[in-house]
Amino acid sequence: QAINSTLAEDSSLSSLKAKYLQIRAQSEKICAPLQAEDYVVQPIVDVSPPKWHLGHTTWFFEKMLLEPFCKNYKVFHAEYDYVFNSYYESIGKRVLRTNRGNLSRPSVSDVYKYRAHIDQQMSQYLTNQKLTSDEINILEIGLQHEQQHQELLLYDIKYILGTNPLFPAYQNKLTLTEATTTRPLGFLKVAAGNYKIGHQREGFSFDNEHGVHQVYLHDYQIADRLITNQEYLEFITDGGYENFRFWYSEAWEWVKNEQKKAPFHWHLIDGTWHHYTMNGLEPINPTEPVSHVSQFEASAFANWKGMRLPTEFEWEVACQTHQPDIPKSANFVEEGYYRPRVASEGNFQFYGDLWEWTNSAYLPYPYYKTAEGALGEYNGKFMINQMVLRGGSFATPLDHIRPTYRNFFHPHLNWHFTGIRLAKHD
Amino acid sequence: QAINSTLAEDSSLSSLKAKYLQIRAQSEKICAPLQAEDYVVQPIVDVSPPKWHLGHTTWFFEKMLLEPFCKNYKVFHAEYDYVFNSYYESIGKRVLRTNRGNLSRPSVSDVYKYRAHIDQQMSQYLTNQKLTSDEINILEIGLQHEQQHQELLLYDIKYILGTNPLFPAYQNKLTLTEATTTRPLGFLKVAAGNYKIGHQREGFSFDNEHGVHQVYLHDYQIADRLITNQEYLEFITDGGYENFRFWYSEAWEWVKNEQKKAPFHWHLIDGTWHHYTMNGLEPINPTEPVSHVSQFEASAFANWKGMRLPTEFEWEVACQTHQPDIPKSANFVEEGYYRPRVASEGNFQFYGDLWEWTNSAYLPYPYYKTAEGALGEYNGKFMINQMVLRGGSFATPLDHIRPTYRNFFHPHLNWHFTGIRLAKHD
Amino acid sequence: QAINSTLAEDSSLSSLKAKYLQIRAQSEKICAPLQAEDYVVQPIVDVSPPKWHLGHTTWFFEKMLLEPFCKNYKVFHAEYDYVFNSYYESIGKRVLRTNRGNLSRPSVSDVYKYRAHIDQQMSQYLTNQKLTSDEINILEIGLQHEQQHQELLLYDIKYILGTNPLFPAYQNKLTLTEATTTRPLGFLKVAAGNYKIGHQREGFSFDNEHGVHQVYLHDYQIADRLITNQEYLEFITDGGYENFRFWYSEAWEWVKNEQKKAPFHWHLIDGTWHHYTMNGLEPINPTEPVSHVSQFEASAFANWKGMRLPTEFEWEVACQTHQPDIPKSANFVEEGYYRPRVASEGNFQFYGDLWEWTNSAYLPYPYYKTAEGALGEYNGKFMINQMVLRGGSFATPLDHIRPTYRNFFHPHLNWHFTGIRLAKHD
Amino acid sequence: QAINSTLAEDSSLSSLKAKYLQIRAQSEKICAPLQAEDYVVQPIVDVSPPKWHLGHTTWFFEKMLLEPFCKNYKVFHAEYDYVFNSYYESIGKRVLRTNRGNLSRPSVSDVYKYRAHIDQQMSQYLTNQKLTSDEINILEIGLQHEQQHQELLLYDIKYILGTNPLFPAYQNKLTLTEATTTRPLGFLKVAAGNYKIGHQREGFSFDNEHGVHQVYLHDYQIADRLITNQEYLEFITDGGYENFRFWYSEAWEWVKNEQKKAPFHWHLIDGTWHHYTMNGLEPINPTEPVSHVSQFEASAFANWKGMRLPTEFEWEVACQTHQPDIPKSANFVEEGYYRPRVASEGNFQFYGDLWEWTNSAYLPYPYYKTAEGALGEYNGKFMINQMVLRGGSFATPLDHIRPTYRNFFHPHLNWHFTGIRLAKHD
Ligand SMILES: [Fe+3]
Ligand SMILES: [Fe+3]
Ligand SMILES: [Fe+3]
Ligand SMILES: [Fe+3]
Repeated sequence: QAINSTLAEDSSLSSLKAKYLQIRAQSEKICAPLQAEDYVVQPIVDVSPPKWHLGHTTWFFEKMLLEPFCKNYKVFHAEYDYVFNSYYESIGKRVLRTNRGNLSRPSVSDVYKYRAHIDQQMSQYLTNQKLTSDEINILEIGLQHEQQHQELLLYDIKYILGTNPLFPAYQNKLTLTEATTTRPLGFLKVAAGNYKIGHQREGFSFDNEHGVHQVYLHDYQIADRLITNQEYLEFITDGGYENFRFWYSEAWEWVKNEQKKAPFHWHLIDGTWHHYTMNGLEPINPTEPVSHVSQFEASAFANWKGMRLPTEFEWEVACQTHQPDIPKSANFVEEGYYRPRVASEGNFQFYGDLWEWTNSAYLPYPYYKTAEGALGEYNGKFMINQMVLRGGSFATPLDHIRPTYRNFFHPHLNWHFTGIRLAKHD
Repeated sequence: QAINSTLAEDSSLSSLKAKYLQIRAQSEKICAPLQAEDYVVQPIVDVSPPKWHLGHTTWFFEKMLLEPFCKNYKVFHAEYDYVFNSYYESIGKRVLRTNRGNLSRPSVSDVYKYRAHIDQQMSQYLTNQKLTSDEINILEIGLQHEQQHQELLLYDIKYILGTNPLFPAYQNKLTLTEATTTRPLGFLKVAAGNYKIGHQREGFSFDNEHGVHQVYLHDYQIADRLITNQEYLEFITDGGYENFRFWYSEAWEWVKNEQKKAPFHWHLIDGTWHHYTMNGLEPINPTEPVSHVSQFEASAFANWKGMRLPTEFEWEVACQTHQPDIPKSANFVEEGYYRPRVASEGNFQFYGDLWEWTNSAYLPYPYYKTAEGALGEYNGKFMINQMVLRGGSFATPLDHIRPTYRNFFHPHLNWHFTGIRLAKHD
Repeated sequence: QAINSTLAEDSSLSSLKAKYLQIRAQSEKICAPLQAEDYVVQPIVDVSPPKWHLGHTTWFFEKMLLEPFCKNYKVFHAEYDYVFNSYYESIGKRVLRTNRGNLSRPSVSDVYKYRAHIDQQMSQYLTNQKLTSDEINILEIGLQHEQQHQELLLYDIKYILGTNPLFPAYQNKLTLTEATTTRPLGFLKVAAGNYKIGHQREGFSFDNEHGVHQVYLHDYQIADRLITNQEYLEFITDGGYENFRFWYSEAWEWVKNEQKKAPFHWHLIDGTWHHYTMNGLEPINPTEPVSHVSQFEASAFANWKGMRLPTEFEWEVACQTHQPDIPKSANFVEEGYYRPRVASEGNFQFYGDLWEWTNSAYLPYPYYKTAEGALGEYNGKFMINQMVLRGGSFATPLDHIRPTYRNFFHPHLNWHFTGIRLAKHD
Repeated sequence: QAINSTLAEDSSLSSLKAKYLQIRAQSEKICAPLQAEDYVVQPIVDVSPPKWHLGHTTWFFEKMLLEPFCKNYKVFHAEYDYVFNSYYESIGKRVLRTNRGNLSRPSVSDVYKYRAHIDQQMSQYLTNQKLTSDEINILEIGLQHEQQHQELLLYDIKYILGTNPLFPAYQNKLTLTEATTTRPLGFLKVAAGNYKIGHQREGFSFDNEHGVHQVYLHDYQIADRLITNQEYLEFITDGGYENFRFWYSEAWEWVKNEQKKAPFHWHLIDGTWHHYTMNGLEPINPTEPVSHVSQFEASAFANWKGMRLPTEFEWEVACQTHQPDIPKSANFVEEGYYRPRVASEGNFQFYGDLWEWTNSAYLPYPYYKTAEGALGEYNGKFMINQMVLRGGSFATPLDHIRPTYRNFFHPHLNWHFTGIRLAKHD
């Protein structure tokens, strides 16, 4: 079985339904501050319109559970299969090549009607029917999928608002009173040896964490917190973006072609670096962890420092060794900060705050097997040309993350909530 | 003076204001059937989001009249200059490269607030102040400009809705009861001789109609109505889109690269050609004039027929000779049909229905002079690589058109309301 | 009949053969200074490799005369049809998408073998056979076609050598001793009236000159020589390339995107403008006519001067009126200067020196008919989005040009031998 | 020290010079069958013109040895630095954006003059001067670099000739009499355990092989020969190129966009698959190892087989375990076959024949350090988005390869000499 279900344990129908409804509500809570227009646009191909995320996650439950398992279930709208499927762009006779951001319909209110309908049908289904383990399994995937899209929603909303010339704020929270100093960068040691890698705990996990296997690691040290804006600013000031020596050849092309001078969402205004945050445009906060860096930038920074990024195996073993449990002060989406926080005492920031780029390519573990059927497309087909990130971010739900969780993105991307952790051999 | 004002004649303030308010209201009437999401998208670069049209035409009055001529006028929003100016994409320090369709803000309601504010300021300005002829001139341009954008609004709305997989209707009017037969195609004769070309009547005209001059025309004949869907369908059925002989070399590249098989907004569904109309998807109406053809398609059709398109001079002289006045049955935007109609008795369809492609390149008339200042940019700078269209469409206001009016588009475009009129030498 | 033959008059076989051999030899003479490598490259899509020109013009005679009219003629090489046809890129089963500049074979020596073979076959054919008027007609077209490619050869050779970082010279002739002053710019007057346009003389002409017709012209004046480098340099120095006011909207995009600052083949070296000439890199010669300007640049220059470019009709009538015959001092390819010359006394430079951009779009004349068959593709299918040039250049054979000859290129192009002549209305 | 020199051992000047001259001669031998035109073209950006390879490898010795270490050395040609440097495209004032394939000069004969000059200077230098270990080190790199370009020369020559519609042969050797049957595919076993990875032998090695380290491997099996054309043909026949299930998501885009149906250099002619070989176009030889597959294709084939590609660590350990020494029958460039051979008895094909795609991303080894100075750019900056290949090909010199040698290419590329070896866990 490709996926270890966590729901299987307590599959009383009422608790399944409660979890379903809670996660579904969270997606809508994330979108609550938006105006209708914000739901529609797609400024770059990597960003999807928020209404598409809302529809697509809904379509997943309709297509994967209601259609196959609910007798007499009638499809809500014949064309939604075409609109909300992420895999193919055309069906049948009316082939239309378009991008998601060109579709004004279905409207936002129609998408919410679609959600309400599916939620009502799902509630009924979860109330009346005894689910097989297969159905529970798919339900779990559907919920994990919705949680992943919740993070994407926040990336994409920040992109949409933060590249608008009016720089509208997502929320108008008082800025956190953050520590004005950070602790000096320290290093955690891990001794050489053979270590077990991959998911072995209870609860849900994705197939890409399976294939538990052994890895030999040489002695290494790993930073005890994320790199800060201040530390990254020194790299910029030292000419980091003008010196090809720190960059991969492809990364240097990227810096030149895109005229990169700082992380994404940074703007130099009257000589002062600002960043767009969910509260709007602000001067850089020096003690906050630097975010919106690509793997190219993270690697270049590490080279400049004379260090390197950890491998995903080093990261996992260090996390399991030095902070096996999520600390109380971890900064997940439940906190509602929507930004990384200054590392607090005893928190090594492995969990939450920012996804941490590793120097590992996203590849299958030794005994990896893709799941059967449509769900088999979930992870394996992306195992080329992407780099692994670990640890979750301030936009991740607390119960979604674990030390073995493998996230992955192309190394030039930086619109998501990424950060830097250094490593070295001695 | 580059532009002959029509407003100058009856420049009593109250009538100016009435005309201003009437035209401004018409733009909003056109948008009334839209949902907020429809205002935002930009599916191709030629199409602008409806909210941009609404803001841009408003910005014109603010920038060209209120700012320079109203003492103490305060700009509504500092960034709107950047958002709604059609000419430059960046200002000052926060340079952002983006397309109009990526901007969710200002929201639709903010744009309407902007319109209300400017309308209120303009009303006050038109109530209190004695306008100079310069100001009246600019006001007239502003109103003509808004009318031009009203047509563009309808092109763009049709594009946005008609390329959506749900094919939503713009309106749900009963379909017209149209004649099921058309009169046979006849030809109007014009005798060889020297003719005067260019605007000489009373009333407003654009600078591109000026430079009244003489042109020698050889004997010719021009069709007495537009080509119908049925006639165009014969061209398709006869392999018109598969035979390079009928097409310019560039047009043939366009047919192959874009895989063209029919006019824009046509869809082959279960073996029957349908077209998307403002009432939604319908089977082709054979007697209705064919629309949404590029100049490439119009020329290919004419070649296939063994005829040609008229020059803009032939068109103008034929119109002035055979139908100098707009007939009662002319189909303009005021009728609210939003589609071309079957040619009625005595109506040669020179006015309204569809813009007619000519085989004349858009070039300056002999004594053409561009206006001074920003308004000088209005026409002259587009006089390369475009072809002239004449006569207005069902989306044109009646009082906006005249026999000398020169519209112009690149020859490959066909999302606007275009049609075909044939000509021949004997 | 679409084409008036000049050969028909004296179609004695021996004179036909002599003319054939002379023109064929001229193509090879043009290529004599090249090294094998220069024959192969295609630095931009508009430029063809010299060996392609040599093969393509040869293929024309094989395909249009030897194959259809010579019994038992055997095709020289089955694949050459594919390699040297300019119209389609693929045949049969081995479809290969490639550009001409990617083909190292057939080698230069194989192309010369092909030429020798065809010339031998053609000689035999022109010796033995009584040609029908159809055959004579095609032969004439073939020779005119080869002459046109001779000009293209020189454009393309100059491109290939002039964009090479070593700036090799095509020839090492002593630089001409040119006049160091030019006569002041004067204007020739033409009175208003109806004029006949199109080819009416004896001798060969292309179908695009046919459709002789009448045109009414208003009073105008036209410059009595071409614009010089010195005059153009004043435009540059005055900020001509930095001021959008002088440029079409599309031209301004071109200037910005291509970062244009001067005509093609100009280089600013240590603060001094140089131009690459067929003799290599030289400081600008101020009295020489400016060349390698696009229609965009010619128009912008005219606007800056407060004048305009002539229409092709004004050009033709002025030429027929003020200099109906080619003056002795005209600078054609036979002179071997390979550059424009300073206007000499009594030479208005209508003939030779540089092709002169007009402000006329390339469109059919009123009674224009395309020829039947493959030759019908020669001109008509290009009558969109191009502008007319008149008068020939230093690369044109003397017997190839006449006052009614219509050349045409897209307005942004400037790798060919173009110049500027001004016009005005009073 | 980043690179272990093999020359250091026997650095008598005469042997250094002999090796230098032998390797330099080999490059020219590879190019001997070419015509001048074949040296010039660059059909795709990955391919370089042969004359560029010849000049660039020469420039390396001039720039890295003669200039810094030979007193009074005068640069051969000031512009060659610009033409033959692979790293920057523009110098000084005459900025020219061009591609290598657009440069007809320096001519082939000038490039050979350049080579002769540098070889003469190098001979003198290697005769007269006692070299420091630094100099020996750079010399060794220069020779390895030239050997690498020898392979690239063969890839590129095959591309240039094999995409020409005339399909000229590189050589006209008699086709090998090859075995018409292959041995059945067997598997070699390797037991789980910790293994040492990286270069530990005598002799030269690149910095990317350093950082000797330990890796834990689980039990696995690896194929005892390469996959044949026949085996790959079954994948094609079974719809391998039409079924998305076997492909990475990016690979599937590649298949669809590029309309892939078979390996590169394969052509379906009259229903039979042919491949272009160095002897010209031939029907597929079923027993020959399949070549010209991308990593995308190799992975898809492995998925279809229900197996996988080995990691580079599995490959290295299997090679060291089962065939530590190069067998006599190994097929390297010295054999002059210029194609892979049928696996012979006792030859597992780890060495020569074809580079074997692994499923390992090209990443630094644990203790990897880049070399100082310009040579530091050699490997490290490419360690992103590329996949490792192992074992050398029929185009590799015998003394250039070893079990720890790491080659790397982007996974979509297939114009080089690549093949498939399968692996599985049990
Ligand atoms: Fe999804
Ligand atoms: Fe406008
Ligand atoms: Fe030609
Ligand atoms: Fe190199």
